[in-house]
Amino acid sequence: MSTKTQEPVIARVSDLPTSEARWVTLKKIEYVDQVGKARTWEVAMRKTRAAKAGVDAVAMGNVLVHPSRPPATLIVIQYRPPLDAYTVEWPAGLVDEGETAEEAAVREFKEETGYDCSVVSVSPVQAADPGMSNANMQLVMVEVQLPEEDGERPQQRLEDGEHIETVIVPLAEFYDRLVEYAKRPRTIVAAKLFHFAHGMNFAQTNKYGI
Amino acid sequence: MSTKTQEPVIARVSDLPTSEARWVTLKKIEYVDQVGKARTWEVAMRKTRAAKAGVDAVAMGNVLVHPSRPPATLIVIQYRPPLDAYTVEWPAGLVDEGETAEEAAVREFKEETGYDCSVVSVSPVQAADPGMSNANMQLVMVEVQLPEEDGERPQQRLEDGEHIETVIVPLAEFYDRLVEYAKRPRTIVAAKLFHFAHGMNFAQTNKYGI
Repeated sequence: MSTKTQEPVIARVSDLPTSEARWVTLKKIEYVDQVGKARTWEVAMRKTRAAKAGVDAVAMGNVLVHPSRPPATLIVIQYRPPLDAYTVEWPAGLVDEGETAEEAAVREFKEETGYDCSVVSVSPVQAADPGMSNANMQLVMVEVQLPEEDGERPQQRLEDGEHIETVIVPLAEFYDRLVEYAKRPRTIVAAKLFHFAHGMNFAQTNKYGI
Repeated sequence: MSTKTQEPVIARVSDLPTSEARWVTLKKIEYVDQVGKARTWEVAMRKTRAAKAGVDAVAMGNVLVHPSRPPATLIVIQYRPPLDAYTVEWPAGLVDEGETAEEAAVREFKEETGYDCSVVSVSPVQAADPGMSNANMQLVMVEVQLPEEDGERPQQRLEDGEHIETVIVPLAEFYDRLVEYAKRPRTIVAAKLFHFAHGMNFAQTNKYGI
């Protein structure tokens, strides 16, 4: 699916004045803590949160269901400039103004993977990285029903500049495959994806007899 | 364990010039993408990453093992100014200069919970929020062996200004309890913790017959 023709390369990293930033910003929070003491905290924020939804982003935990093949999940691999690396993630995207989490999930999943999906569940709002930012997200679990003869993989509908490789992984191999991806050069697995797969593996091995 | 005496309150939120920020910063990345096109990306970064470890933070996925009680995990609840809310997380902390992930995990776990723990496994480095920042972390799984008569909960060793409530949750109730926490006012569950518990629940219900 990828149109990759060369390895991305960083030319320059420079300080970005807060006043010039378009997508993210820095804020200083002055607050009074639990014992009445005045304190400050520095926070990074997205400038794009849609007011209505009150949530920055959705990620799509997904299961591809096929009549005869084992259940699988689709992961996306893309170059992420903040890390100068290829990340392994579930499909995700920002929630647009006026959209619900469900609508954003179905739209973004179609764009990034080409598949139509149905929503199975929507998680509570979760804090993406609570010590550093106010970024938040919802995990939307979705299902794709594949026909017996599903033929070629559907076309993505990527925006200009998006280069996203899609990989289908049987759920039974999910955790082990992520561990393998993490060993590849210039590759890093996203924490949310790894934690979900780690939780599955933890439950399946059931060392503690839960 | 909490010394909370009043609800924290934010007095003021102001733009923080990048040049004045001490803990986080903004950078502009200029890069050449896969098809040879020059692009830019805005990124938030911590200014505290220890050079040796190359990783910002550790989180401690933990199991409290008791001779006769069911296996449980300890979660921490604390006010997080970036979200103006109480977050539910696993104990976590920044890796200090010269520390390994294992050392940081044992030290931070003792500080936040009062318990001595042993390290069971260390995950690959994971990207905390790859679209927005270069922040990364490792999930260190740890175990605490409790004696039959474990008496009072041990004392935390918190730094000045830290007010961290610890709660012990049986692993069998982990996911359901997080869903309940997410319904409380001014409370948000951290994405990594929720994803781990969600993965456990996904494997345990095993809707897809993995």
